[in-house]
Amino acid sequence: MLKDYEKSKPEEKSAVSEEIKELRATLAGQQQLIREKKLPILVLIEGWAAAGKGSLIKEIISELDPRFYNVVSPAVVPESEMRYPFLYPYATAIPENGKLMFLDSGWMESVVRKRLRLEISDEEYKRRVRAVNEFERQLRDAGYLVLKIFLHIDEEEQFERLEDLSEDPDTEWRVTPDDLWQHREYKSFLKAYDEFMEETDETIRWHILDGQRKRTAVRDAMKLLVGRIEKSLAKKRYVGEPFEEKFPLLKMPKLAEVDLSPAISEEDYRKELKKLQKRLSELHNVIYRKKIPVVICYEGWDAAGKGGNIRRLAYPLDPRGFDVHPIASPLPHELNRQYLWRFWTRLPRTGHICIFDRTWYGRVMVERLEGFCGEKDWMRAYNEINEFERQLTDWGAVLLKFWIHIDQDTQLARFTDRQNTPEKQWKITEEDWRNREKWPQYEAAVDEMLQKTSTKNAPWFIIESNDKRYARIKALKIVVKALEEACDRHFENTFE
Amino acid sequence: MLKDYEKSKPEEKSAVSEEIKELRATLAGQQQLIREKKLPILVLIEGWAAAGKGSLIKEIISELDPRFYNVVSPAVVPESEMRYPFLYPYATAIPENGKLMFLDSGWMESVVRKRLRLEISDEEYKRRVRAVNEFERQLRDAGYLVLKIFLHIDEEEQFERLEDLSEDPDTEWRVTPDDLWQHREYKSFLKAYDEFMEETDETIRWHILDGQRKRTAVRDAMKLLVGRIEKSLAKKRYVGEPFEEKFPLLKMPKLAEVDLSPAISEEDYRKELKKLQKRLSELHNVIYRKKIPVVICYEGWDAAGKGGNIRRLAYPLDPRGFDVHPIASPLPHELNRQYLWRFWTRLPRTGHICIFDRTWYGRVMVERLEGFCGEKDWMRAYNEINEFERQLTDWGAVLLKFWIHIDQDTQLARFTDRQNTPEKQWKITEEDWRNREKWPQYEAAVDEMLQKTSTKNAPWFIIESNDKRYARIKALKIVVKALEEACDRHFENTFE
Repeated sequence: MLKDYEKSKPEEKSAVSEEIKELRATLAGQQQLIREKKLPILVLIEGWAAAGKGSLIKEIISELDPRFYNVVSPAVVPESEMRYPFLYPYATAIPENGKLMFLDSGWMESVVRKRLRLEISDEEYKRRVRAVNEFERQLRDAGYLVLKIFLHIDEEEQFERLEDLSEDPDTEWRVTPDDLWQHREYKSFLKAYDEFMEETDETIRWHILDGQRKRTAVRDAMKLLVGRIEKSLAKKRYVGEPFEEKFPLLKMPKLAEVDLSPAISEEDYRKELKKLQKRLSELHNVIYRKKIPVVICYEGWDAAGKGGNIRRLAYPLDPRGFDVHPIASPLPHELNRQYLWRFWTRLPRTGHICIFDRTWYGRVMVERLEGFCGEKDWMRAYNEINEFERQLTDWGAVLLKFWIHIDQDTQLARFTDRQNTPEKQWKITEEDWRNREKWPQYEAAVDEMLQKTSTKNAPWFIIESNDKRYARIKALKIVVKALEEACDRHFENTFE
Repeated sequence: MLKDYEKSKPEEKSAVSEEIKELRATLAGQQQLIREKKLPILVLIEGWAAAGKGSLIKEIISELDPRFYNVVSPAVVPESEMRYPFLYPYATAIPENGKLMFLDSGWMESVVRKRLRLEISDEEYKRRVRAVNEFERQLRDAGYLVLKIFLHIDEEEQFERLEDLSEDPDTEWRVTPDDLWQHREYKSFLKAYDEFMEETDETIRWHILDGQRKRTAVRDAMKLLVGRIEKSLAKKRYVGEPFEEKFPLLKMPKLAEVDLSPAISEEDYRKELKKLQKRLSELHNVIYRKKIPVVICYEGWDAAGKGGNIRRLAYPLDPRGFDVHPIASPLPHELNRQYLWRFWTRLPRTGHICIFDRTWYGRVMVERLEGFCGEKDWMRAYNEINEFERQLTDWGAVLLKFWIHIDQDTQLARFTDRQNTPEKQWKITEEDWRNREKWPQYEAAVDEMLQKTSTKNAPWFIIESNDKRYARIKALKIVVKALEEACDRHFENTFE
């Protein structure tokens, strides 16, 4: 890619300027349609230090309504200070429908730099490349227009630019030690950039532009952008096709096969609860100290006892170190972005525990059954979710998923109890009764979900909850065991 | 306060436990009403290191629905690394209506520590105390229930607890060098806490609880909380009274007195624009380097030319260093919080420029005239806004406010042009015409706003925009001048 890149030929200045003027007018004219058709656009600008990424963006946006675009420039945080998955700064910044976002250096820069700095292993590098491909595909499949540009300058040109910047006291600070390091290691960077681009060129193509000729680069970038927008606007919003990737899946029983009789005596419950909560409290300290992030997902039937189960789990935890995220219907600004966005933004920091009370699995349950998303969308979601979860566990997270299970009779009894107890009435709504009528459809959807998304790294646990106390103890035991294992693993790692 | 605090007497353990049990049940019962009545609750828990703040919160929430509360524990960031105003971590974290939030150490801890560490001057300390009082009052006046608790232990008790924690390898990390420093400086802290509490006890009272007796403290905290909730639920939501504080106000003309004839020739415009943009581009570098935050506010009549004006201002800026925030009607989750929240969350980092396209002044214009808030609310807002803006300039921000002004005839001409030009039609809506009919009411509201909120630190500038080019040059000149002054001031400071 870069190594055999041919420099562009000089063109007549005024002709290029004229073209830019026209392209600017076209882009300004496209704004309204983009808004109306709710097209989200992400333009990734990568490239060499001092290649002129900032000015390129400046020229592209100069005639645009500032309400319509934004520019994001996430810092590359050293690996040792990373509190979130490496894609977090980008995944949480994606534009909403009808908006244009420029990313001034993004996931490419961060992954390549860390590779060259040896902050990440070769294996981790490969995982990140895979995650980048997954992330880009997920955006495309959700109807995002993603454009990737690499602004190229050669070694000599970089030298001159860095020198120019260093000589002016007002721009001197712009040349960072990192930039100088890149310049010294120009050849290694060239190779690493090239490899990265080759490895991530399949779903969304890279476009290399010649940063040496600023005006031409602006023209070419705008041509690409305007052309892609035109194409997207002419068609219906793109919806990705479902696909199947191989994940190491765990065998799960059908819900109908689950024996719901397990129960526990009041006395054993008290004893076990106390013991497990004590242990969990100790483990929370270790988790915090070892900076292990923990994500615990609760799904289950209405009135299955999720709330009470979560409460018993949360009780021994230090309130400063965990969060419970109740997930309701998405708000307008959440609906306006890829569906995983609202979960990305709620991830815990390393060392913290976060509990989701309902999760991204809404996609393949309520959204599927109520028609809140298209068929292809929920069919695609199984794999997208497996990918998302693998990104979390690759980051080092402990990820546990509970299906809190009861049978229909138990649900009816609890609904009726709620109906008849004044303090509990708020817990039961018309919607609960409506959902209950769709039990068979939900059961089929849950069965499919459990089969397709119980991966080795992020397993599902069916928690029998006809006896709520039994369910609480079982969930607690699973959490304690998983955290103990994670703490041990982490211990080994530090000595490797 | 602390120095003459009398320790509580021992009570019978089982009786206290019984009380706690009852209080927990009451609080759990109150949840639904809090949700229905949309009462937002903020509980601030301050206190000595190792006083048991975390466990206190844990005990209070143990029976609560985790969907209903959250616990926030912002880190105290060293002053040199602060990228936002000191109240930012708290102001951006306030709960929404119907939710209960615990702050495990908040603005008190941060202000007192920095004072004792000499990270802030005595003057700055006083400013922060004032800002804290303003912030608390603004929350109360917006109907928030704010409860402030200080958990007290004596020097000896602190010693023992720190020692206990240090001895266990799993809790050792909890004892920070900061905690040990506090213990060594127990007496200075005592004095400083005392002073701070005395200075912030007027609007929202402090409650000191005896951390030595954990169970009693839990009981007392819950009693306070449950009692306060009961009281709040029994009444209508509290709405603060308007009040007038003395701010150094600049004399502003009435809009009707403004001469709108100023214009500029095309040639002069080009020349000036180029010169000013070049200068602004240079200044942006200095601003960034000197870490000066800049907030520029645009308000004005529909079709006055805000968008084009902002574009000319934004063009020379490095896109990585500025943001434009278009402000539309608040979203549900924004409406559910104090009205300044959605502006707090959009503040720039130090060294960054942020441009608000419409602002918090919506409160005293559209919200006032369309009845989106109560009379007391918008009447109170003038002072609240002056306070908020003083907090920003105390932080070191350059804060400029532009009223982009045209007359009714010019507006009509521009509306008609928009109506008749297909590419511009999206810019004009029924609402614009409706607003136009209310010109006299709006004019009166704007006049009042300009009189009451043009402070020395955050002045209003009326920008005559019948000639858009003139308006752009004028706005640019004001920005350039203000930034030059700020850079000079900052230069002096570093040598003081």
